[in-house]
Amino acid sequence: MQNAGLLKELIQNLCSLPGVGPKSAQRMAFHLLQRNREGGRQLSQVLAHAMDNIAYCRDCRTLTETEICEVCANPLRDTEMLCIVESAADVWVIDQATQFNGKYFVLHGRLSPLDGIGPDQLGIDQLEQRLHSGAIKEIILATNSTIEGQATAHFIGEIALKANIRATRIAHGIPMGGELEFIDSGTLDHAFKGRREF
Amino acid sequence: MQNAGLLKELIQNLCSLPGVGPKSAQRMAFHLLQRNREGGRQLSQVLAHAMDNIAYCRDCRTLTETEICEVCANPLRDTEMLCIVESAADVWVIDQATQFNGKYFVLHGRLSPLDGIGPDQLGIDQLEQRLHSGAIKEIILATNSTIEGQATAHFIGEIALKANIRATRIAHGIPMGGELEFIDSGTLDHAFKGRREF
Repeated sequence: MQNAGLLKELIQNLCSLPGVGPKSAQRMAFHLLQRNREGGRQLSQVLAHAMDNIAYCRDCRTLTETEICEVCANPLRDTEMLCIVESAADVWVIDQATQFNGKYFVLHGRLSPLDGIGPDQLGIDQLEQRLHSGAIKEIILATNSTIEGQATAHFIGEIALKANIRATRIAHGIPMGGELEFIDSGTLDHAFKGRREF
Repeated sequence: MQNAGLLKELIQNLCSLPGVGPKSAQRMAFHLLQRNREGGRQLSQVLAHAMDNIAYCRDCRTLTETEICEVCANPLRDTEMLCIVESAADVWVIDQATQFNGKYFVLHGRLSPLDGIGPDQLGIDQLEQRLHSGAIKEIILATNSTIEGQATAHFIGEIALKANIRATRIAHGIPMGGELEFIDSGTLDHAFKGRREF
């Protein structure tokens, strides 16, 4: 190989980004070096700063650089609704796409006994405390629709019902714009069983 | 938006990488923060180091962190062969894929009068000095096979011939494994005109 260590090292390190293989990493490295050094420097700074300063919100466990995240600190948000999600990325997505104006609780995972992930790893203790505080009237279970996500939703739903809190699950069925012809049979079956009054 | 400034800033800065849109940047940011902080820190360091220390080789103008790149400094490489390429990425690709054991010269562009890119911008002066030094016996024109790349190859080929140096152009035709049915007509025409004795 002709190019000395540093360029190679840069390409290798860019490969640690998800979805980036050696070819894309090479393209990124050359792009930054030949056309956008300032962008590269800035990315480096923000990256270091983010890795060192972004931690978890004390209340909802999402990613934030402050002790309490913006959502939890926002007095305009509905404290009676709590949306339970598997990851901080889900908070981000839901807040961008929906009109949901309540608060969140991030599990950072899903129940998966085979991988040794039980209620303790998901902060269920902390969640139960919040549910028993009396402030919450409804929880929305927005875990993924995988088997483990469903089991997690079921588990948390039971806890909520015991605490006399309404528990709802986000709707599953045909995606908007989806054509029946191309929908998998499991989803289609679910959509028929879960049909609603027109 | 719920997540405070720093996470958003990280996502925006990741978008400065080529081929990375807001969705991939989001995925990268969450991946690094939730699963690979050490990788993120290391990437940040290497990035800063690379942006500040990688410059151009004095002799061949490729990207390197030393004054003279590894290829130019390597006494085992053939000094009589000089391969002319458009970008430092091409040096990297050629060195990985071929048995070429000579040296390189990087133009950092191609002749493009409409964009104000003439011989001065491509270091043709420096190239001419090397050609007249008497050490080089053959130049391989490996500019891209675009119209501008061809014109650039033609321009440099003329200079070499005036200096009594053999000038060759890399072969163009059907790519290895390519099926005729799917080859564009320009390439196919070129492959017929440039056919060789079997």
